[in-house]
Amino acid sequence: MTQAIATQDPIITSDSATFTKLVSKEGGTEYDLLPINICEETFAPLEVAYDYDKIRHQVSRETIAAGPNSIWRYRPFLPVATDNVIDVGTGMTPLVKSTRLARRLGLKNLYIKNDAVNMPTLSFKDRVVSVALSRAREFGFSTVSCASTGNLANSTAAIAAHAGLECCVFIPSDLEAGKVLGTLIYNPTVMAVKGNYDQVNRLCSEVANTYGWGFVNINLRPYYSEGSKTLGFEVAEQLGWKLPDHIVAPIASGSLFTKIYKGFQEFVKVGLVQDKPVRCSGAQAEGCSPVAQAFKDGRDFIAPVKPNTIAKSIAIGNPADGVYALELAHKTGGNIESATDAEIIEGIKLLAETEGIFTETAGGTTIAVLKKLVEAGKIDPDETTVVYITGNGLKTQEAVQGYISEPLTIEAKLDSFERAWERAQTLERLDWQQVLV
Amino acid sequence: MTQAIATQDPIITSDSATFTKLVSKEGGTEYDLLPINICEETFAPLEVAYDYDKIRHQVSRETIAAGPNSIWRYRPFLPVATDNVIDVGTGMTPLVKSTRLARRLGLKNLYIKNDAVNMPTLSFKDRVVSVALSRAREFGFSTVSCASTGNLANSTAAIAAHAGLECCVFIPSDLEAGKVLGTLIYNPTVMAVKGNYDQVNRLCSEVANTYGWGFVNINLRPYYSEGSKTLGFEVAEQLGWKLPDHIVAPIASGSLFTKIYKGFQEFVKVGLVQDKPVRCSGAQAEGCSPVAQAFKDGRDFIAPVKPNTIAKSIAIGNPADGVYALELAHKTGGNIESATDAEIIEGIKLLAETEGIFTETAGGTTIAVLKKLVEAGKIDPDETTVVYITGNGLKTQEAVQGYISEPLTIEAKLDSFERAWERAQTLERLDWQQVLV
Repeated sequence: MTQAIATQDPIITSDSATFTKLVSKEGGTEYDLLPINICEETFAPLEVAYDYDKIRHQVSRETIAAGPNSIWRYRPFLPVATDNVIDVGTGMTPLVKSTRLARRLGLKNLYIKNDAVNMPTLSFKDRVVSVALSRAREFGFSTVSCASTGNLANSTAAIAAHAGLECCVFIPSDLEAGKVLGTLIYNPTVMAVKGNYDQVNRLCSEVANTYGWGFVNINLRPYYSEGSKTLGFEVAEQLGWKLPDHIVAPIASGSLFTKIYKGFQEFVKVGLVQDKPVRCSGAQAEGCSPVAQAFKDGRDFIAPVKPNTIAKSIAIGNPADGVYALELAHKTGGNIESATDAEIIEGIKLLAETEGIFTETAGGTTIAVLKKLVEAGKIDPDETTVVYITGNGLKTQEAVQGYISEPLTIEAKLDSFERAWERAQTLERLDWQQVLV
Repeated sequence: MTQAIATQDPIITSDSATFTKLVSKEGGTEYDLLPINICEETFAPLEVAYDYDKIRHQVSRETIAAGPNSIWRYRPFLPVATDNVIDVGTGMTPLVKSTRLARRLGLKNLYIKNDAVNMPTLSFKDRVVSVALSRAREFGFSTVSCASTGNLANSTAAIAAHAGLECCVFIPSDLEAGKVLGTLIYNPTVMAVKGNYDQVNRLCSEVANTYGWGFVNINLRPYYSEGSKTLGFEVAEQLGWKLPDHIVAPIASGSLFTKIYKGFQEFVKVGLVQDKPVRCSGAQAEGCSPVAQAFKDGRDFIAPVKPNTIAKSIAIGNPADGVYALELAHKTGGNIESATDAEIIEGIKLLAETEGIFTETAGGTTIAVLKKLVEAGKIDPDETTVVYITGNGLKTQEAVQGYISEPLTIEAKLDSFERAWERAQTLERLDWQQVLV
């Protein structure tokens, strides 16, 4: 059996470390910096606390800009004690100023944060895993693991391979082919569990208690989830050290959504950006929308659902941070909306055709919800709005197959091309006529 | 019919522009900066010439480092006259210092330049297309096109969509599914030509002469190919403004290979790095290795071949810049080697398992050749060696299916997991025993 903790001091901290303890999100009970994630008293999630005075003395816009071209430029805000971090270039993905999608939607200041090209495995999960595995190494875990809807398994397997850690990942057995192969290629052990993500997650909690493994999103979750703050940091830096007016991001467990906002707040706290209101709006797939339902119903609790949607990467029926996501949307004057599978596919196509960004179903959900919110007058055309694209379309090719055009097959001869081109022009005109009717 | 050139001044230059003319690679005949690619006298390719004194006055390490986080930080070295460039965050991909692959191969200073996560479409082609379409827009082309083995079609379609240009791409009809879908999603016209790349390319030359389109790799080729220099620039900057001792890169048309070196030389010319020898070694798939064959045979000419390999993205039987690639390897003391399809698959797996980077068949070829060169003593363990990974494995999933392990399917119960885990451990031990026997 693998040993849980091989080091002398499982707390692992250093003089320059800025993170000080774990704190319960309900009641504030404090814990040592151990690989634990649940408050023993309230069963609430634990969160990392920092010494912001210490951070303020360590960072400035200049030190950050001179840092590595990755999430590790924000190192004082991340819960890793030693300098031995795993840096494979994760983060610093483009913030693209939209022209064509913005025009289509009638927005004047739309930006797309494109984590579909995040490194190394093309989703925002590379951020949280880079942090979690750096911390796992500090704890001395030699085997790392996760419960995943696909992207997290890709990322954990890849970064574990890079770092030379043993890896065993758990996924629902009905995942998209690209996500399964995109894990297996790194040669971890892959457990395909007959059941949905929530069942996989429950099984993993049991395994975490029995085996001494570092589960990135279970016993390492407090450290892991801090990685998502970098999606807030980067946007603020890329906007010229300013906060946006409005963000739209997907909600799965709710962690990403709330941590982006935590990132903004921390930048304010240490004086890197000016304080201002940021409205936070969330996107869910209608086939798994427990947070959007609660928002719609005006409830302050989440009723778990059984997922049934093509947006598998965000299909969490019992979201761990759902109630905090709900709170955040209310508190900031945002909204939480859902999109049907058909709208999700249209969202994927819309983003690809207007911006040249091919996202997976989660990104399609976010774009579809962005569109809905604009149409409902819930996003002001003048607001500086940032929409978060969190994963790559090459991993969920099944979702769009059958909904896009086919190539025109021709002979390698000019006249064959000319006939096909004429046909294509006619078809396009017919398409437009149908649209205009 | 689309107009070829809609602007008043088809030469398109500006006072600050650093590029001055097109020059024939054989004989040096000079041409105006038009959308042309072949010398009328010698039929040799045309290349962009620069005023390096002017560049020297425009750039320093500091101005570059303060520039955008993309290839456009090297703008004075790129043949685009106006400020209206297409910047979707292309370039500035990680240069990863290898530990685990390096150890496996017995190298001490191995770096991986990872364009498998290039933006927006996950191959180095985004570099050349960003330059070509920026220039195409200056020429006033409203329709852009290309002859492609897949990656170029992805990139042209995506960046054209972003820029709002009409797009029609040509591919061989037997491409990998991911490459076809990864083009169609942007909604261009796709012509699937019954034939290999060389036949597609010939057809496109005819179309380019007849229709007034901007073909990125035909009439725009002199501008397009300059984009590959950024793979030289970035490596030099990321090594701390130093040139490497040895590079290993794939050879398809030979353009990428030679332009990386041109990038190094230009940095020397303007005083950004110190001059030193850089050995340039090239990789081809054995099933399409006209340049490697010529190198092996000691010939100074390329005998075209009919491609037959899983490495479709580099399967060019009649490479336009093959002879220059050959020359460069000889001149710099490098080598050109080929890898079989089986070795290519092993190369993909080796890179994934040791570094967490999932590359396509072209990258597998490069890793396989790197390994061969090390084993043959043709790379010194102490040399600072950079291996170029040029595309993403999610686009060529077919190539590795059947060569990787399967997930272990289990029930969502602890005892089901435990049985599977024990089995996995036993299998792994057996694997090792087989290796040791």
